Amino acid sequence: MLHEDRLLPSDPSQRAIARRLYAEIRNLPIVSPHGHTDPAWFAENKRFPNPAALFVIPDHYVFRMFYSQGIRMEDLGVPRADGGAVETDPRKIWRLFADNWYLLRGTPSRMWLDHAFSEVFGLDQPFGPKTADAFYDHIDACLAKPGFLPRALFERFNIEALATTEAAIDPLVHHRALKQSGWTGRVVTTFRPDAVVDPEFEGFAANLDALGQASGEDTGSWAGYLRALAERRAFFKTMGATATDHGHLNATTADLPQDEAAKLYARARKGGLSAAEADLFRGQMLTEMARMSLDDGLVMQIHPGAFRNHNQPVFERFGRDKGCDIPIRTEYVAALKPLLNRFGNEPGLTIIVFTLDETTFSRELAPLAGHYPALRLGPPWWFLDSPEGMRRARETAIETAGFYNTVGFNDDTRAFCSIPARHDVARRIDCGFLARQVAEHRLGEDEAREVAVDLTYTLVKKAYRL
Amino acid sequence: MLHEDRLLPSDPSQRAIARRLYAEIRNLPIVSPHGHTDPAWFAENKRFPNPAALFVIPDHYVFRMFYSQGIRMEDLGVPRADGGAVETDPRKIWRLFADNWYLLRGTPSRMWLDHAFSEVFGLDQPFGPKTADAFYDHIDACLAKPGFLPRALFERFNIEALATTEAAIDPLVHHRALKQSGWTGRVVTTFRPDAVVDPEFEGFAANLDALGQASGEDTGSWAGYLRALAERRAFFKTMGATATDHGHLNATTADLPQDEAAKLYARARKGGLSAAEADLFRGQMLTEMARMSLDDGLVMQIHPGAFRNHNQPVFERFGRDKGCDIPIRTEYVAALKPLLNRFGNEPGLTIIVFTLDETTFSRELAPLAGHYPALRLGPPWWFLDSPEGMRRARETAIETAGFYNTVGFNDDTRAFCSIPARHDVARRIDCGFLARQVAEHRLGEDEAREVAVDLTYTLVKKAYRL
Amino acid sequence: MLHEDRLLPSDPSQRAIARRLYAEIRNLPIVSPHGHTDPAWFAENKRFPNPAALFVIPDHYVFRMFYSQGIRMEDLGVPRADGGAVETDPRKIWRLFADNWYLLRGTPSRMWLDHAFSEVFGLDQPFGPKTADAFYDHIDACLAKPGFLPRALFERFNIEALATTEAAIDPLVHHRALKQSGWTGRVVTTFRPDAVVDPEFEGFAANLDALGQASGEDTGSWAGYLRALAERRAFFKTMGATATDHGHLNATTADLPQDEAAKLYARARKGGLSAAEADLFRGQMLTEMARMSLDDGLVMQIHPGAFRNHNQPVFERFGRDKGCDIPIRTEYVAALKPLLNRFGNEPGLTIIVFTLDETTFSRELAPLAGHYPALRLGPPWWFLDSPEGMRRARETAIETAGFYNTVGFNDDTRAFCSIPARHDVARRIDCGFLARQVAEHRLGEDEAREVAVDLTYTLVKKAYRL
Repeated sequence: MLHEDRLLPSDPSQRAIARRLYAEIRNLPIVSPHGHTDPAWFAENKRFPNPAALFVIPDHYVFRMFYSQGIRMEDLGVPRADGGAVETDPRKIWRLFADNWYLLRGTPSRMWLDHAFSEVFGLDQPFGPKTADAFYDHIDACLAKPGFLPRALFERFNIEALATTEAAIDPLVHHRALKQSGWTGRVVTTFRPDAVVDPEFEGFAANLDALGQASGEDTGSWAGYLRALAERRAFFKTMGATATDHGHLNATTADLPQDEAAKLYARARKGGLSAAEADLFRGQMLTEMARMSLDDGLVMQIHPGAFRNHNQPVFERFGRDKGCDIPIRTEYVAALKPLLNRFGNEPGLTIIVFTLDETTFSRELAPLAGHYPALRLGPPWWFLDSPEGMRRARETAIETAGFYNTVGFNDDTRAFCSIPARHDVARRIDCGFLARQVAEHRLGEDEAREVAVDLTYTLVKKAYRL
Repeated sequence: MLHEDRLLPSDPSQRAIARRLYAEIRNLPIVSPHGHTDPAWFAENKRFPNPAALFVIPDHYVFRMFYSQGIRMEDLGVPRADGGAVETDPRKIWRLFADNWYLLRGTPSRMWLDHAFSEVFGLDQPFGPKTADAFYDHIDACLAKPGFLPRALFERFNIEALATTEAAIDPLVHHRALKQSGWTGRVVTTFRPDAVVDPEFEGFAANLDALGQASGEDTGSWAGYLRALAERRAFFKTMGATATDHGHLNATTADLPQDEAAKLYARARKGGLSAAEADLFRGQMLTEMARMSLDDGLVMQIHPGAFRNHNQPVFERFGRDKGCDIPIRTEYVAALKPLLNRFGNEPGLTIIVFTLDETTFSRELAPLAGHYPALRLGPPWWFLDSPEGMRRARETAIETAGFYNTVGFNDDTRAFCSIPARHDVARRIDCGFLARQVAEHRLGEDEAREVAVDLTYTLVKKAYRL
Repeated sequence: MLHEDRLLPSDPSQRAIARRLYAEIRNLPIVSPHGHTDPAWFAENKRFPNPAALFVIPDHYVFRMFYSQGIRMEDLGVPRADGGAVETDPRKIWRLFADNWYLLRGTPSRMWLDHAFSEVFGLDQPFGPKTADAFYDHIDACLAKPGFLPRALFERFNIEALATTEAAIDPLVHHRALKQSGWTGRVVTTFRPDAVVDPEFEGFAANLDALGQASGEDTGSWAGYLRALAERRAFFKTMGATATDHGHLNATTADLPQDEAAKLYARARKGGLSAAEADLFRGQMLTEMARMSLDDGLVMQIHPGAFRNHNQPVFERFGRDKGCDIPIRTEYVAALKPLLNRFGNEPGLTIIVFTLDETTFSRELAPLAGHYPALRLGPPWWFLDSPEGMRRARETAIETAGFYNTVGFNDDTRAFCSIPARHDVARRIDCGFLARQVAEHRLGEDEAREVAVDLTYTLVKKAYRL
């Protein structure tokens, strides 16, 4: 099912080079420094319930496509926010999935699923309506075996380190349990403070109270609030965190005098900020986070530019993360200036910036990353985490940013079985990109081989301090 | 003159696959669901007057390029708005065209013209100054023959259905005549209400009066105005319409309470709206049109983002459609939210969105079309209706939107003889795109074959309900 | 070291065509109509001091990349604005450069440097830490020879004409000396009035005084100011200038009534303009410059969209041009309308527009250049002057603008030894682009050959009137 040369360029000279490069890196361990897998899987090591629960129900990359063609999410088993009835028979869900499998043609989800079926479950027939039941039965039988428990898969996937993402006030019980379990798999957390730094987040005031309780600091004052954040960061570090992550609507940063920041915080706490002030506060907090990163060494990730929950009726019926987050045009040059002018010249700091607006690669992000010592360019994210998206990202960013201001690949996934597939796609696309450079005599093959290893392994570990 | 493999990838493995795919679809009938041919041609079936009148004088794709190099439009026979003198000798115009033929190198117009010369008129020499007269004589002689009358060409072009575009107050006399003619060619109209929904359109108030007369409704009130529009839509349906078309400066939509909309209409009728209010009114009317589409089943097309008549001196001298419409940056995510939140979840509604700003394919339109059941992504439009533009559109949109949220090809032309050429270019580019997917083992050739047929034929008919 | 086929497509059929096309143009003379080389080099014809001073210290393309990876600019010998200590041993700088050479992989700087080492200095080993000293010694020895003096290199590079760029108040002493020297190399100046047309330029009022003195006109009044500018333009023409150049933050133009412009000037002179008014004044001056160009025949270049000196701490420490100029999103359609509506229909005027925002090629600039007689599209600039950037520029602009609304290549460099390299890259990329057109049967090879010569030579000379 999976062709040995998939995703490599079809030009014979490029393909030959790409094969050689890929042979050098295909077996390197997976380093997954950013993603959204559930730490409970590894802490509890329980079996995955069934094929539909593994591949369909939680994967908004998949069910959004079916929804876009008029299939009800209820029929795909997606839980409703109001607890209303949805399909609960996993085999019925699976058959609906198989019947509409053709809709995924041309998408990365199709490739990831093919890869998981073949490489994880050893299925070598094409998936579709005719094979749906056989696939279901086989996968379901596998899931009952010890070799398909989360930790066994983690080891089989050759994952050297995996970062999950938790909210700042999360008690990290699963990470604690993992630490005490004696299992040697490296699963670390990431500090995500959106709920306590964004005045427009649901329940912001209550979140601040919870932050106070979790940290033992009084978040009633600006100083106490900052101490509380620093304390939580320190706690996350004890659970392996090497990074923070910040999901904002845009890339705004600010560098206010501390007394102004304190006043803004006092008003934010009371819930009275305008949209522009809330934006300013979030921007100020990015700069505060950078300052703390200089102290505690946590790497900073900024993920701006997603308009969340664009579809109001779907949000009301099903809640967040239902495939209706839509990228928006994102500006970085003016937005990042306050942060970069304050801390961008610090070689000891690492700020990794992501984008959903690929026009910014050549125009804004590569020039910025090709100059500021603290800035690194994150890999293609979300809708851009696809063969064409990755190829364009390399073509538009590398000439100005160079390879060494990038940080390797992120799978960013909540679909565990897609991790090897996603890393494999990235490796193949990189080898194809490098093969073209070699075939066009722009880079020696010896150098390309070094770069391939760096992009796959070295740069990730270095950038994320893993 | 026309190479059998033109526009197919030159990589041998891709070309071989592309040839096989193209062989499957090359002879499929043309379905042309959106364009600007003149229904009078088919109703009256008169001969085209001469080669210059067929290929040069009315084609702003062609004469804009000559104008950009300092050739006067008067010398190309383009009529002046004030009736001032222009060249009237078609052979002189044709020779000027031939002398400057080289200026079209690298443009799609060049390919379309080569195709028409070769396939429609059987000319197998390169066009240029040396062959200008021979081409003129040959084409002119052909045009006098029955086989070159509009209906004969329509049949020879293997057109299964062709949509023209008429204003909401158009009496559709040619379509009426066609219906009564007994000719079996399927030529349908499209409902284009810009002149009666855009308060900034020339003569808006008079247009509303005309709308009232045409519909027998009183457009003095909001309710009467909406009834008048619904009545005209129904009339257009009797002339075969399956779609409406909306050409707006931007993609703004609105979903006002009906009493506010009524008040805004009352003020629009008097001519007192600010630019922002006019924009709001147009946006509200898109939502009203969607509501009517749910009732009457007409498919909705939105064509935003052209700054019309950018060149004021040319507009004053020659009028509209003279090659000086320039694309502008276009935002869809916030703009379409009111419409999509109101009607985007209706699987019975089809809204086809187009763009002249190709940055929106990967960032905005593919994510939107990959989620909302009512939304479909139109093919590359106008300046993007070119080999490179089409290729990029596939590369930037398909991974997120999938193939099945697209609607096949539109030729969008007023140049009748370019119809087969344009469809052929689209088919070849699609086969090349699919061939790369197959050659890189991202899609099976059997699946690619199905997709090729769907993109060429099935999806068009389904989306446009033809 | 330099492969004969470098940068040509690897597909065998395309490569064969590209080789043939390249053979036709590889030896055409270099016409360099826009750049920033120092006229003193050619006037004085002194030896270049050492390898570090030639290749590292003045080249912000190179040292920005090292700086982005934490290397101090002081250690690379980059002079500080305050005269503080920096490394002065050229060999130590050279070794640091060699140690970090790998950081330039994938960048055009790497290719330009490889080309200069190989073609200008005859070095055929890979550069790097192991060969650093040998390279240094060899280059240093060469620089002492007559064959490596600026004029000798100019002749060896086969430069037919080279334009430098000087401020409007520059006395052009080197150009005067060159004129009187009897040397036959053609080095002309370009009129760059930013410092006297931009109210936000450092020392604007003093610059106006200097302009008055230089021209003998009273810049106290609008009329006198315009006369002063016209006088300086005339003086620049006596030093060979055929063009003006305008570096603005954005593409704003304006066409104010003269009395309003005069009032705005009076206030600008006093230093009281808001940012919006300063923008308006700069925009008005573009239109004034176009009017003067109609009188004196100077070609007009507009370079908008660079946010200069983004890194405030670096600017304070090192001054301008230190690799921290970052492109911003740039709008042309509305911005250029006043200028184009006033003078865009003049076939006797040439306005060449550049961009750092490549999204504008297909959306705005190609449609504008494909219509307005006065407008031409400049080659890919700065960050886009790279193999991928050039390829994308051709792919996104040519289908709409055609080849003949472009103006060939600009090297835009202050690195003298990179001139042959940069022109060679452009020629190779153009041949590759044309070879694909031929291999896909979109253009005959005979026509492609003509276009290759036009892009390399004919169009440059015509557009710049050289």
